[in-house]
Amino acid sequence: MSAAGLDLIAFDADDTLWDNEPLYQMGRARFESLMGKYGPLDDLNTLADKLEVENLRYYGYGALSFVLSLIEAAIQWSQGRVTAGDIGGLIDLGKEMILADLPLLDGAEETVAELSKTYPLVLITKGDLLHQQLKAERSGLMPYFKKVEIVSEKSPEAYSLILKEFGVAADRFMMVGNSMRSDILPVLGLGGWAVHIPNAMTWAHENADIESAPGERLLEAASLRELPALIEALARRPGAAGARSG
Amino acid sequence: MSAAGLDLIAFDADDTLWDNEPLYQMGRARFESLMGKYGPLDDLNTLADKLEVENLRYYGYGALSFVLSLIEAAIQWSQGRVTAGDIGGLIDLGKEMILADLPLLDGAEETVAELSKTYPLVLITKGDLLHQQLKAERSGLMPYFKKVEIVSEKSPEAYSLILKEFGVAADRFMMVGNSMRSDILPVLGLGGWAVHIPNAMTWAHENADIESAPGERLLEAASLRELPALIEALARRPGAAGARSG
Repeated sequence: MSAAGLDLIAFDADDTLWDNEPLYQMGRARFESLMGKYGPLDDLNTLADKLEVENLRYYGYGALSFVLSLIEAAIQWSQGRVTAGDIGGLIDLGKEMILADLPLLDGAEETVAELSKTYPLVLITKGDLLHQQLKAERSGLMPYFKKVEIVSEKSPEAYSLILKEFGVAADRFMMVGNSMRSDILPVLGLGGWAVHIPNAMTWAHENADIESAPGERLLEAASLRELPALIEALARRPGAAGARSG
Repeated sequence: MSAAGLDLIAFDADDTLWDNEPLYQMGRARFESLMGKYGPLDDLNTLADKLEVENLRYYGYGALSFVLSLIEAAIQWSQGRVTAGDIGGLIDLGKEMILADLPLLDGAEETVAELSKTYPLVLITKGDLLHQQLKAERSGLMPYFKKVEIVSEKSPEAYSLILKEFGVAADRFMMVGNSMRSDILPVLGLGGWAVHIPNAMTWAHENADIESAPGERLLEAASLRELPALIEALARRPGAAGARSG
């Protein structure tokens, strides 16, 4: 058992350990610049947003889903006038996004390096299987993690399966992430601990009302750098994570 | 320990438990019928084959990769003349493929039901995370499996991780599948057992020279229905899987 009574700490990847949303913003900017010649851009992003969410049921999350939705939006929005060349530009954009290096967020390496000395760490991310693996490998952080878990949706069921795999009780598990919807609420719902690190660049789809979260096991940090001290304080708090009853 | 000395039996999914390649053949036929108006189809499939394999490094395996490669092939092959409407037809094709029900192969349900009484079973498949999950759920076979493992490549490393997760030694593990490249060779290489069930519809990319396989732990079955008897015979063979030394 670890000092703070946590048996496993999990990190979200995109926009928690490294920048991801800025890549999608760049993608949308490229999309707008390709579409500008077909008319005023007014409704373009609204349509793309709508298709991106509607298409989750077919494609799941990730860059492939993003590009397929942009192609569909381009066709609909231009009323079929978009050229094959511009659709080819969207295909190129997708490949560029998949190959892009994503900058680590402030303190990412130091924080996971320090915590990995005391706790087993696991990365839990959703998106395209191969692309998420490539991002994890390129980050250079994988030596600090026991495993990368890529899931199609960060549902309570997905977290339960991971807890079962590691043989860890929910109240000895902590998830760290920027998304209330994916990283925080499902883990609190299972009786686990969650640290929310807000990121101004979080995709709107990932937001949820923080007020809806049960408060007791939800912690907030302004940056990854605060995490080790926060976990240490937790370990010293009577009745907190891992303070054994009896 | 199980009767035959196997601690875990894994099944490939696509073209082992259910038809999958016929869906891709249908996709290619639709692709040809959409492209016919742009010229003679001679090189169309050669180009699509080439792009599909080249793009694995970006997209990995699966229907999303397939559709993105068809769109790219359509643009290149038509020299930019393909219309937005026909590209929209390829987007529709992809969604249709993702929603398609895939017929179980002969004996699939009876075989996994019977084996699951004695052995823990796991499904190991590669492709789009969400789509592979949807196919597994729709198959109705999941009650017989402990877990679905979706990997980006069926590499020796991917199999090793699964063996580690289940705490199973390679020589007490058996993989059943149609692909020499993905299901058989990597498992034999790790010292595991493999049952090859050839399927005439196997994607060419998945073939490998069966002569290149070490023979001792490679078994061949003409259909899933032969599997229980084959495993039982193995258990009775002196020195075979699980015959304990000493």
